[in-house]
Amino acid sequence: MEFNLELTIALLARTPAALNAFLRDLPDAWTLANEGEHTWSAFDIVGHLIHGERTDWIPRAKIILQFDEARAFTPFDRLAQQRGSHTKSLPQLLDEFAALREENLHELNALNLQPSDLERRGQHPSLGTVTLSQLLSAWTVHDLTHLHQISRVFAHQYRDAVGPWSAYLGVLRCAGHSS
Amino acid sequence: MEFNLELTIALLARTPAALNAFLRDLPDAWTLANEGEHTWSAFDIVGHLIHGERTDWIPRAKIILQFDEARAFTPFDRLAQQRGSHTKSLPQLLDEFAALREENLHELNALNLQPSDLERRGQHPSLGTVTLSQLLSAWTVHDLTHLHQISRVFAHQYRDAVGPWSAYLGVLRCAGHSS
Repeated sequence: MEFNLELTIALLARTPAALNAFLRDLPDAWTLANEGEHTWSAFDIVGHLIHGERTDWIPRAKIILQFDEARAFTPFDRLAQQRGSHTKSLPQLLDEFAALREENLHELNALNLQPSDLERRGQHPSLGTVTLSQLLSAWTVHDLTHLHQISRVFAHQYRDAVGPWSAYLGVLRCAGHSS
Repeated sequence: MEFNLELTIALLARTPAALNAFLRDLPDAWTLANEGEHTWSAFDIVGHLIHGERTDWIPRAKIILQFDEARAFTPFDRLAQQRGSHTKSLPQLLDEFAALREENLHELNALNLQPSDLERRGQHPSLGTVTLSQLLSAWTVHDLTHLHQISRVFAHQYRDAVGPWSAYLGVLRCAGHSS
């Protein structure tokens, strides 16, 4: 499928509600569980998504529109949530993510992007030249990567409990971990 | 994590609302898209989950409680949704899934399962001897397998659109497909 701004926004707009319906008031035994040392829980992942809303996607879109390739993006701190969210509850993080996403989609809309804007180029600090449409696509697939990860982290908790059914349950064989 | 009935129900109860928040009114370009020939769309997956509610999890739990290993489970038809759901809309399927899941959790509750019941054994037509707690764990991880799949199917649509970001987006490297 080719990049489509309307379809991108339709998906980005639904992630906070989907996470809210899935995670709010779910027992801590699920939401604080991870896949082992140095891996993330659902709680960590929501913190990471919040940090992306604050520092990654829309700020980078604005750098492209203002500076093109003359100014590289600020590197994204993938571990920032370990500093910022440990004093908050998961419901607070879900509310914060929803509010930031709504603001960011409002800002995106206000940019009134034209087809020619979507081809404008920026400099990613490690990936090199990227376009605005690639950035917005990556924002979407980043949400999907973390929904995918939450499903896998939860499934991991019942890896032994399912017994012989593990042969049929694809999520238990997922190797799609982000680097 | 060991099997825990309360935690299992907490997760099973949230799946319909999570799917509803994510999928209802999302454009068909997302919900009807699949990963290629003989693969499933989100629409197909919700149909498959409905069929599981009708024929798989609770009916099998009742077979264990009534017959133990004397009667094998009826094999689960993984492709039934291709016959049953093609005349319905996605919102109809989401409503149907939510209603069936609610009924099934009501039935599960009415079984008033004791710790000793959870160890009771049944005969799976291909996996052999399984316990009731394994069946209920597999019900939960089956939900997670399909949430994981929906994220992956959507991400696949933007596989090219993300350009060089594909290196960072784990969902695009997922090989956790169910057999």
